Amino acid sequence: MQLHKRDVVEAATTLLDDYGLADLSMRRLARELAVTPGALYWHFANKQQLLGAVADRILAQVQLPHGDWRVQVSDLCGQVRDALLSHTDGAELVSASFAAGQSAAMTTVVDGLAAAVLQAGVTASHAELTARTVVYYVLGFTVDEQSRRQWDAAGADLPAPAPLSDDADARFGYGVALLLDGLSARQRV
Amino acid sequence: MQLHKRDVVEAATTLLDDYGLADLSMRRLARELAVTPGALYWHFANKQQLLGAVADRILAQVQLPHGDWRVQVSDLCGQVRDALLSHTDGAELVSASFAAGQSAAMTTVVDGLAAAVLQAGVTASHAELTARTVVYYVLGFTVDEQSRRQWDAAGADLPAPAPLSDDADARFGYGVALLLDGLSARQRV
Repeated sequence: MQLHKRDVVEAATTLLDDYGLADLSMRRLARELAVTPGALYWHFANKQQLLGAVADRILAQVQLPHGDWRVQVSDLCGQVRDALLSHTDGAELVSASFAAGQSAAMTTVVDGLAAAVLQAGVTASHAELTARTVVYYVLGFTVDEQSRRQWDAAGADLPAPAPLSDDADARFGYGVALLLDGLSARQRV
Repeated sequence: MQLHKRDVVEAATTLLDDYGLADLSMRRLARELAVTPGALYWHFANKQQLLGAVADRILAQVQLPHGDWRVQVSDLCGQVRDALLSHTDGAELVSASFAAGQSAAMTTVVDGLAAAVLQAGVTASHAELTARTVVYYVLGFTVDEQSRRQWDAAGADLPAPAPLSDDADARFGYGVALLLDGLSARQRV
């Protein structure tokens, strides 16, 4: 039976959801698919590339929004957060893939944010940097949120809960709005 | 020989620097110290608590700065980034400990940032949320920066380098300034 690349990515995503990132190894994935590890390396040069493909699968539903630049940025940030939270360790996996430059979908997100902030009057030379600032906030927030959720689900007794922890949407939106206000302020200068 | 808590933290920090977070286990640490794992659990209820103590050790040199609130925020962000970058996987370890509420030093950093932004006119009810927004950016940026540095040092050929990657200080400062501009803009309303 021929092993398709998309079947490998599907199986890896299922393993991720069931066991978490720490237990997602090439060896385990090969066993799950009943193939040799060598068959996986025919599709992916290394584990980083595979994780990048899983990151793209996690972000597959994200759509570049239309409208006012502030709405575009908020909407895109919200979509990325939702996508990451819908898979076990999704935030950690996407952060790692982004840092390794392995996620095409994250490149599209950065490009979309950069195009939006250009409309806010950010210069072309600073648009990608601004987009990355927004992405670092989104990833930092969501990694934290997901860790807390997963520990909570595992019954861990965590001290010092975050303020407003019962309304994570509002907490997330607050930081995005602060960044947008920074951009708006520069627009007025 | 009596096993002191600070000796355990020192040995754990050395293991971290030499082998990275993935290889920092209670078992390995006990072997390094020539004690039984049980001796470690006398000082730390679990690995999360130990990692929290290592996070505090990493952040030990961070000082709450004085002066104008903008200077305080930038300075504190810069100190945290420098501290994280000075240990292997420091950003990842501190992020995880922060999310688990196990790092007293990170609580002090959040409190320091919250006190600074109060001076910017942020209401008391939003000061901690604002401080956390800044922290998420700092952690998101630094996790990314450190991953890239470590892969680079390992000889990995990473595609799509970040813009201005030859000046990480400027890239980091840009995002902090954007958040500060957001706060300043609200101050003027």
